[in-house]
Amino acid sequence: MDAIDAFQDHYPTDFAQCYGCGRLNAQGMQLKTRWADEAAGETITRFTPRPEHTAIPGFVYGGLVASLIDCSGTGSAAGAAYRDAGRRPGEGAPFRFVTGLLKVSYLKPTPLGPELEIRCRIVEVKGRKVTVSAQLSAAGVVCATGEVVAIQIPEDFGR
Amino acid sequence: MDAIDAFQDHYPTDFAQCYGCGRLNAQGMQLKTRWADEAAGETITRFTPRPEHTAIPGFVYGGLVASLIDCSGTGSAAGAAYRDAGRRPGEGAPFRFVTGLLKVSYLKPTPLGPELEIRCRIVEVKGRKVTVSAQLSAAGVVCATGEVVAIQIPEDFGR
Repeated sequence: MDAIDAFQDHYPTDFAQCYGCGRLNAQGMQLKTRWADEAAGETITRFTPRPEHTAIPGFVYGGLVASLIDCSGTGSAAGAAYRDAGRRPGEGAPFRFVTGLLKVSYLKPTPLGPELEIRCRIVEVKGRKVTVSAQLSAAGVVCATGEVVAIQIPEDFGR
Repeated sequence: MDAIDAFQDHYPTDFAQCYGCGRLNAQGMQLKTRWADEAAGETITRFTPRPEHTAIPGFVYGGLVASLIDCSGTGSAAGAAYRDAGRRPGEGAPFRFVTGLLKVSYLKPTPLGPELEIRCRIVEVKGRKVTVSAQLSAAGVVCATGEVVAIQIPEDFGR
């Protein structure tokens, strides 16, 4: 994987349809998650909301904030699984996670306009379960924090 | 309020732009939450996901599930505030809530296709804070549960 590649760039076709992070979903957000610091287990995801992603005028819709934390969390979990397997994304059988539990604390209204930055940290890897913490900020101000418990999809899921 | 009116039908113009539940957001989901049993504090919201709202092919995107629980929770909180004030939505100063905390447990993959039903229950009203529990089902099967802590917006918010 090139340093600028995102984990989601290597999801196999079947798993690349996600509204949040599938590169093949033309209507979706096509989120991209990358290592910010692989040794520390920290990733970064960026997204600029569209004008319609409003809550109260001037602020970002809370469901979108939850979606950003969700997909950057499962993407980070995939990154951790590759790292722990000693493989690079795209090498060998793919890892793909779904969300088991999502928790979001809205600390302050997220302004609509600036690019949002979601920083995730791998908290724990336990078998097929990866716990990820997340922090969403706008123009350097943390507006929401969250936690994602991501579960690795069984290889035969949906087949 | 007519029995078939939704709480969101009575949000004032400024608060009716929400991507999830604003009746004035043409690109949004325009969710509608109504009392199912006002005395018991139970509401119902229905939504049929669009084809692009996919996670893994055949299943609903988790961020959408979170969004549905989020907006049906804040809508239910508004309903509870009107009820406790002895007013009908649309009568007097409006109540509008934002999300302070959102928690979603994904119990099983939500099938993409059938209309989804979100049932909320008012758990607690404490000053400006309303706690709501939610249950999302597809074709009668509960696929996710959640909790929303909704905070009443100050009257001067964003003005």
